Amino acid sequence: MQFRMKTHQLPQEKLEALLQRSPAGALATVNADGTPYAVPVHFVRTESAVYVHGLPAGQKLENIRANPHVCLTVWEMIGLLPDAEGRPCETNTAYESAVLQGRACLVEDLQEKQHALAAVIAKYMPELTGAPIPDNMLRGTAVLRIEPDAVTGKYWP
Amino acid sequence: MQFRMKTHQLPQEKLEALLQRSPAGALATVNADGTPYAVPVHFVRTESAVYVHGLPAGQKLENIRANPHVCLTVWEMIGLLPDAEGRPCETNTAYESAVLQGRACLVEDLQEKQHALAAVIAKYMPELTGAPIPDNMLRGTAVLRIEPDAVTGKYWP
Repeated sequence: MQFRMKTHQLPQEKLEALLQRSPAGALATVNADGTPYAVPVHFVRTESAVYVHGLPAGQKLENIRANPHVCLTVWEMIGLLPDAEGRPCETNTAYESAVLQGRACLVEDLQEKQHALAAVIAKYMPELTGAPIPDNMLRGTAVLRIEPDAVTGKYWP
Repeated sequence: MQFRMKTHQLPQEKLEALLQRSPAGALATVNADGTPYAVPVHFVRTESAVYVHGLPAGQKLENIRANPHVCLTVWEMIGLLPDAEGRPCETNTAYESAVLQGRACLVEDLQEKQHALAAVIAKYMPELTGAPIPDNMLRGTAVLRIEPDAVTGKYWP
């Protein structure tokens, strides 16, 4: 069953474009008992980092406080490529994916938080670019900065 | 920024429906050095397990051989729910997500592999249901069975 994902390495430029446009990804962390835990997140890819914002509580943040290592994974399934002769084992998936492994920390600096949330607005709500972010919102929102250690991408065909 | 994901617990029935229809998910494992690693996978949810098939080599399988704990995460982003007054911090995301934590093992039994791959075909290529799976394909494809320890789901609104 070739419908498993065949792979090529995704060129750097396409890898970054995928990270920039992906509306959501899975953020994997490690639980206290050593088991993996992944949740969907919105995120913004900047030149040197990734920012994730959210509620200032929860298992993901607890995990990161104890172990900063994370993995952000995104993909686009473009579609199935059926075999001309109808053989299921010769069916493939057209896709692009990116895996960003790195370390996350909570951003405390209010200027950096403001900058990160402005980037979130520019990505998801460009029509609201420049809209004010009230101070209590800024303080009440958790912002994670992920510094990548390794970023890889794959695609087919 | 309420655009962080607000949550309700997804009822069991909707959780299972989401797992059954999701075309792909992130499968998180733990690397030998204790860092998390997640990759996109196709999968099939059966009554008692999840099956993932793929190439019989790679980091995911290496990780699982050393540490069987995995987390399969899927989601559907239904769309942004803009705030009527244009406040970015009052924007929310409509979504459903599922997190399945469990243990994975390689299926060696050829009958179980056949059964799992038939379920894959029924999900992804229903028009090929019943198509033969050549024996060499069956032997050359790795099939993982994931036994869930905990399955949770969230949604908004």
